[in-house]
Amino acid sequence: MEIKLDQAAALLARTPAVLSELLRDMPEGWLDCREAPGTFSPMDVLGHLIYGEQLDWLPRMRIILEQGESRPFDPFDRVGFRSLIEGKRVEELLKTFETLRNDSLQAMSALNLQPAMLGRAGTHPALGTVTLGQLIAAWVVHDLGHLAQIERVMARQYRDAVGPWRAYLPILDVSHANS
Amino acid sequence: MEIKLDQAAALLARTPAVLSELLRDMPEGWLDCREAPGTFSPMDVLGHLIYGEQLDWLPRMRIILEQGESRPFDPFDRVGFRSLIEGKRVEELLKTFETLRNDSLQAMSALNLQPAMLGRAGTHPALGTVTLGQLIAAWVVHDLGHLAQIERVMARQYRDAVGPWRAYLPILDVSHANS
Repeated sequence: MEIKLDQAAALLARTPAVLSELLRDMPEGWLDCREAPGTFSPMDVLGHLIYGEQLDWLPRMRIILEQGESRPFDPFDRVGFRSLIEGKRVEELLKTFETLRNDSLQAMSALNLQPAMLGRAGTHPALGTVTLGQLIAAWVVHDLGHLAQIERVMARQYRDAVGPWRAYLPILDVSHANS
Repeated sequence: MEIKLDQAAALLARTPAVLSELLRDMPEGWLDCREAPGTFSPMDVLGHLIYGEQLDWLPRMRIILEQGESRPFDPFDRVGFRSLIEGKRVEELLKTFETLRNDSLQAMSALNLQPAMLGRAGTHPALGTVTLGQLIAAWVVHDLGHLAQIERVMARQYRDAVGPWRAYLPILDVSHANS
């Protein structure tokens, strides 16, 4: 499927509400659970998404539009969010993400992007040449991947509790590399 | 993690709202997309969850409590939902699921389950002996697995559109057997 700007924006706009329904008032212990040491907990995912709103998606879009391929994107630190979430309650972080995402979408709307601009190229520091359309598609998929990751990390808490049903619940055996 | 009845009920209670935020007002084409012929679309998942509310979880719970291991559960048809969703709008199905889930949780609450009862055994037609606690844990994991499946099916629509970012988005390459 080719991306359509209005559809991509509509998908990006719903992520804060999905996250909020998934995570607010979560029973104790579920926000900090993880699949293995060093992997993301639900709170980590939320921090990572907030940090991406600040430093990843919109800033890179602006670099493509203003400087093209000549100026590579700054590398994004996928664990740069640690200090952002320290001591914060989940409700506060959900609100922060919602605000930042709305800001991003308003900023994207103000860029008045046209379909013909989706082929504009930029330089990813590791992946090389990428286009504006690929960046927007990756933003959508990145959201969906991390929502699925949260659900997988939560499900994993009951891996033993389901007993023989494990055979019918493949989410319990997806590798945690697959976020 | 051992299951706690109040936590499991709280997790089950939030699924209708998560689904609603994910699926209502979805851009055209996204509700019926699928990873491969014969796999579930987002609408199919919703139908499957509705059908499970009607015929799977609570009915099996009652069989365990009333008849124990002597009476195996009825087999559950995972594609028995087809006629349920035919011609229906997603908003209508989301409302139906919300109502049925609330009914299920009220019925479970009325059973006044106690932790000591979670070890009560029943007979699954394929898996053999299972317990009430395992059934409740499987219900929670089943919800989470299908939420993650919807996100994966949606993400897959942009598999080609993300270009080189595919290397960083493993949700695009999880096998569709892993629902």
